[in-house]
Amino acid sequence: MSKTRIKTYDRIILESLKLFNEQGERSITTNHIAAHLGISPGNLYYHFRNKEEIVYQIFLQYRDFINERLTVPLDRRMTVDDLVNYLDTAFLAMWQFRFMFYDLPGLLARNPQMQSDYHQFVHSELKDILAGHFREFIKLGLFLKMDEADIEPITLNIWLVVKFWFAFEQTAWPDAPITEESSRRGVRQVLSLLKPYVQDDFMPVFEQLAARYAD
Amino acid sequence: MSKTRIKTYDRIILESLKLFNEQGERSITTNHIAAHLGISPGNLYYHFRNKEEIVYQIFLQYRDFINERLTVPLDRRMTVDDLVNYLDTAFLAMWQFRFMFYDLPGLLARNPQMQSDYHQFVHSELKDILAGHFREFIKLGLFLKMDEADIEPITLNIWLVVKFWFAFEQTAWPDAPITEESSRRGVRQVLSLLKPYVQDDFMPVFEQLAARYAD
Repeated sequence: MSKTRIKTYDRIILESLKLFNEQGERSITTNHIAAHLGISPGNLYYHFRNKEEIVYQIFLQYRDFINERLTVPLDRRMTVDDLVNYLDTAFLAMWQFRFMFYDLPGLLARNPQMQSDYHQFVHSELKDILAGHFREFIKLGLFLKMDEADIEPITLNIWLVVKFWFAFEQTAWPDAPITEESSRRGVRQVLSLLKPYVQDDFMPVFEQLAARYAD
Repeated sequence: MSKTRIKTYDRIILESLKLFNEQGERSITTNHIAAHLGISPGNLYYHFRNKEEIVYQIFLQYRDFINERLTVPLDRRMTVDDLVNYLDTAFLAMWQFRFMFYDLPGLLARNPQMQSDYHQFVHSELKDILAGHFREFIKLGLFLKMDEADIEPITLNIWLVVKFWFAFEQTAWPDAPITEESSRRGVRQVLSLLKPYVQDDFMPVFEQLAARYAD
């Protein structure tokens, strides 16, 4: 594979992501992408059979991004800073790949391969990772206090709020663009889900953390 | 307006709702609806200019359904049964009008009139109604205990879980159809949001309520 080929391939992915995020994936065609990059449609089709293949490659980058950053440290116990980092990672991923979350059901319905991989990702990887993290935080004992039976519904609620936050903001305020402030509001919502489980001793630390995301 | 005209008009709305719910709004055309009803496309167009107008009329029915059932009783204090009824109403509405919630952002983007009305509905009506209900439940003192500052984020989380529950289930388990059991799982998720705020004295009543929605 020549150097030029790799470069064009990566540029197509990078600029497509930018266009999808700014204008929505549905309104962008392969012709738009080629024109934006100043390459011929033929050149684009040399690298990707169709738009779905570009979307799918972007999804794989999203998955790698999450997997690399949500790992559990093996050489030490988890700390509250880890929780903060996980939240930041989740919303950073949402922000950087936000076009995926404007209409995830529709996007998946149009990309069978992505639907299957997404399904695999959230069920056998992400769900266990998230529940595992919670158990760790509860084991710390200092920070969160919840019954074992509560872990799954709480994890599910957090997952749901993160996943649909942008779609929620978009339908609630259709004229306002999605901004990084939207991500901050999303973090606040997730923190509000955790707040009732925060141990009294840790409440000052928690309030300090929440203040980082205040208006 | 003749009796036949009213009848056909209502039948179009009713059967369209059924088809949208079962097969998704995007895959159903006005021709499908006419064929399903055994009427000519011309007859359908006599009543509705296009599919968006049918979708919009269905949205108005949804709005009326919510507005009629989420009213605050004027002649008595609210009770825990009222909370249960509100939850049932929310998910019954979600179930009966479920096609609207598979891809709400996309649906609204294709229907400017509906987007504007939906926006008006959730901001100036529904949001106040929900927050008002919470304040009532907290005033009861017996049931929920939360700070004034927590009411808004909690209301928002409940709203988000209700609104995106079906989309969440659809993307998480794409091969499983949305059923009434999905609604029950949705109620369980909402109850899990409320659980940490339930007063100790009321926990037995709450557990009894939750058991009604158990597996």
